[in-house]
Amino acid sequence: MERRKYLQIPGPTNVPNRILTTLSKPLINHRGPEFEELLTNCVNGLKKVFRTNNDILMFPSSGSGGLESAIVNLFSPGDTIVVACHGLFSERLALIAERYGVNTIKIQKEWGKAIKAEEIEEVLKQDVDKNIKAVCLPQNETTSGISNDIESIGKIMKESGHPALLIVDVVSSLACLPFETDTWGVDVAITASQKGFMLPPGLSMISISERAWKLTEESKLPKWYWDYKAVRKKMEEQQLPYTPPTTLLFGLKESLDILEEEGIENVWNRHALMAQATRNAAKAMGLFLFAEPGYESDTVTAIYMPEGVVFKEFSNILKSKYGVVVGGGLQRLQGKILRIGHMGSIHELDVYAVMGAIEMSLFELGYKVELGTASKAVSETFFKYLI
Amino acid sequence: MERRKYLQIPGPTNVPNRILTTLSKPLINHRGPEFEELLTNCVNGLKKVFRTNNDILMFPSSGSGGLESAIVNLFSPGDTIVVACHGLFSERLALIAERYGVNTIKIQKEWGKAIKAEEIEEVLKQDVDKNIKAVCLPQNETTSGISNDIESIGKIMKESGHPALLIVDVVSSLACLPFETDTWGVDVAITASQKGFMLPPGLSMISISERAWKLTEESKLPKWYWDYKAVRKKMEEQQLPYTPPTTLLFGLKESLDILEEEGIENVWNRHALMAQATRNAAKAMGLFLFAEPGYESDTVTAIYMPEGVVFKEFSNILKSKYGVVVGGGLQRLQGKILRIGHMGSIHELDVYAVMGAIEMSLFELGYKVELGTASKAVSETFFKYLI
Repeated sequence: MERRKYLQIPGPTNVPNRILTTLSKPLINHRGPEFEELLTNCVNGLKKVFRTNNDILMFPSSGSGGLESAIVNLFSPGDTIVVACHGLFSERLALIAERYGVNTIKIQKEWGKAIKAEEIEEVLKQDVDKNIKAVCLPQNETTSGISNDIESIGKIMKESGHPALLIVDVVSSLACLPFETDTWGVDVAITASQKGFMLPPGLSMISISERAWKLTEESKLPKWYWDYKAVRKKMEEQQLPYTPPTTLLFGLKESLDILEEEGIENVWNRHALMAQATRNAAKAMGLFLFAEPGYESDTVTAIYMPEGVVFKEFSNILKSKYGVVVGGGLQRLQGKILRIGHMGSIHELDVYAVMGAIEMSLFELGYKVELGTASKAVSETFFKYLI
Repeated sequence: MERRKYLQIPGPTNVPNRILTTLSKPLINHRGPEFEELLTNCVNGLKKVFRTNNDILMFPSSGSGGLESAIVNLFSPGDTIVVACHGLFSERLALIAERYGVNTIKIQKEWGKAIKAEEIEEVLKQDVDKNIKAVCLPQNETTSGISNDIESIGKIMKESGHPALLIVDVVSSLACLPFETDTWGVDVAITASQKGFMLPPGLSMISISERAWKLTEESKLPKWYWDYKAVRKKMEEQQLPYTPPTTLLFGLKESLDILEEEGIENVWNRHALMAQATRNAAKAMGLFLFAEPGYESDTVTAIYMPEGVVFKEFSNILKSKYGVVVGGGLQRLQGKILRIGHMGSIHELDVYAVMGAIEMSLFELGYKVELGTASKAVSETFFKYLI
């Protein structure tokens, strides 16, 4: 018998039925008026979610493609940028930059630790010649389930008087965590369709400030597909320069409607509450969180595998018996942690069910926990905030 | 009342219901066994359509992204390649190459004329030092509705003894026109999801020969997202290096099943017959084909707008009264031609209906044609070949 599935990896996320049905709509001409209206609606809706008046560009690509686009449009070989490195995805940005001959000053932290505003401040202070062109970091590192405080970092960068741009990877945080592109002074924010927007993968979306546009004028890196100026020019005609992933735009329009109906602040609050319930349940079961206290992500919770429980056996039971798929640890964290995605379409009973399934699976593998512990903690969290 | 829609632009094409329904399937973990099986099935199916034992790579991108990937993986700044230039898409490849500092020897032809094997032979013969790294051209130029004879070109290149690779843009021809990657000696063939595969846009697919892999070892152009070697390595684990457009792979699996059930030779023959019927109907109505005789494309028919009929008025009637969307002329051909896409899911009654709608729309705008002319020509074509 078919049953409800819980895709609780840190993205792609569960796609709501309202969006799923839009994906099977017949295609339209991407050079016609219907598409132009669709694109305009999407861009206007995205500006509300990014909280920006900056330009929004789109690419048929994964989120990693969006990261690459920022490097090749803004910099030249020999330029220097600061890159926070504390997980697979933040380190990927440094890797991309180096491939293109851009020098990176890495703020290397243990995976699981956040990047602090003072660390950025210190690096910029040492750059007396103001050579650093940009500071790049993720709002949310899905590798380890930590979030960086972009508001504080933006504030300190403004106060420093250093001209470096602030480039933020918001792939796994936009439309989930509070984010204020304009107020926080974020020059380039890069996201993708398969996380907070609750869509299949294949579309990256990027906001670009006036200051960032100036840098594109100086960039000497070769580019064609990722060329921001070409995309902006074509988007002024409400089109994209090459064949766009129309189906994802159908879904994006629906996603933006859903977010608008709930209200973006309510979306943020919901994510915070679901994350709190997840963490409380984990702790109540005697599990330990991987992320630095105070910086735990509200979109993904990373938990140490308890001693004696093998991740693969655990995740097999979770999937085969309960239909729940969680993420494991990446690279050096493989087998050491489990990661629960709770972003996008995530609500009370999802957390209740998923944490219950985790409890039962651990119990089955011999982990000592009183049955009902997770659901008690989840319920208590909800009642504390909801009533 | 909702009615049947005819998206007869030269791609994206009409998506069959069997594929549409797969697009709204809930997502799966792209790092789990279900995905691995899906990817393996897709790659095996694609090899049958490409008619190759070469490696097949995939990118979350439009077809143009696939073109860029070939340039940045195979060449270095200062390398020289031959590029056929006889339409927007073939000229785009030259543009991309030049952006990356690759020199291009252009075989420039009037839009609407095909590139002949002897022209390629001549250019290679003049290259006594054998500096030319590759010959690049499209099998099908959708700008003008012409097809190049890749079989002859591949043959002449082999016979010439020149080591240049043969790179073919099969975006608007694969799974429509006969194509034999291995037999014809095609080193790199690039296609995308939204044409013969009858899927939404957002996935590019590329076959790469052993000779081409050797060239990737010498390439000095910077790359990360498009890096063939990184993609091949990850595909050996039945995964893709970054988040793949899973939904399109659901659809691709279904598309490959559909093509397999019909048989690829039957698919080719069907396209040839539908194209023949389209051309016969156009000619019977007194219209003139744009493409060089003998090289008319079997996936898109370009027709001169008859004197006194304005394309925009014509296409408006066609769309609003009959639900048929056709393409117009691009750039310098704007207003001068109309382009009818007949690729992918195209069958007898589609051609019958579409050509009938074109006839009625032209008639309404004062064009002199006896009503029923198109359908008579379409029917006669079918009966000639079918009975």
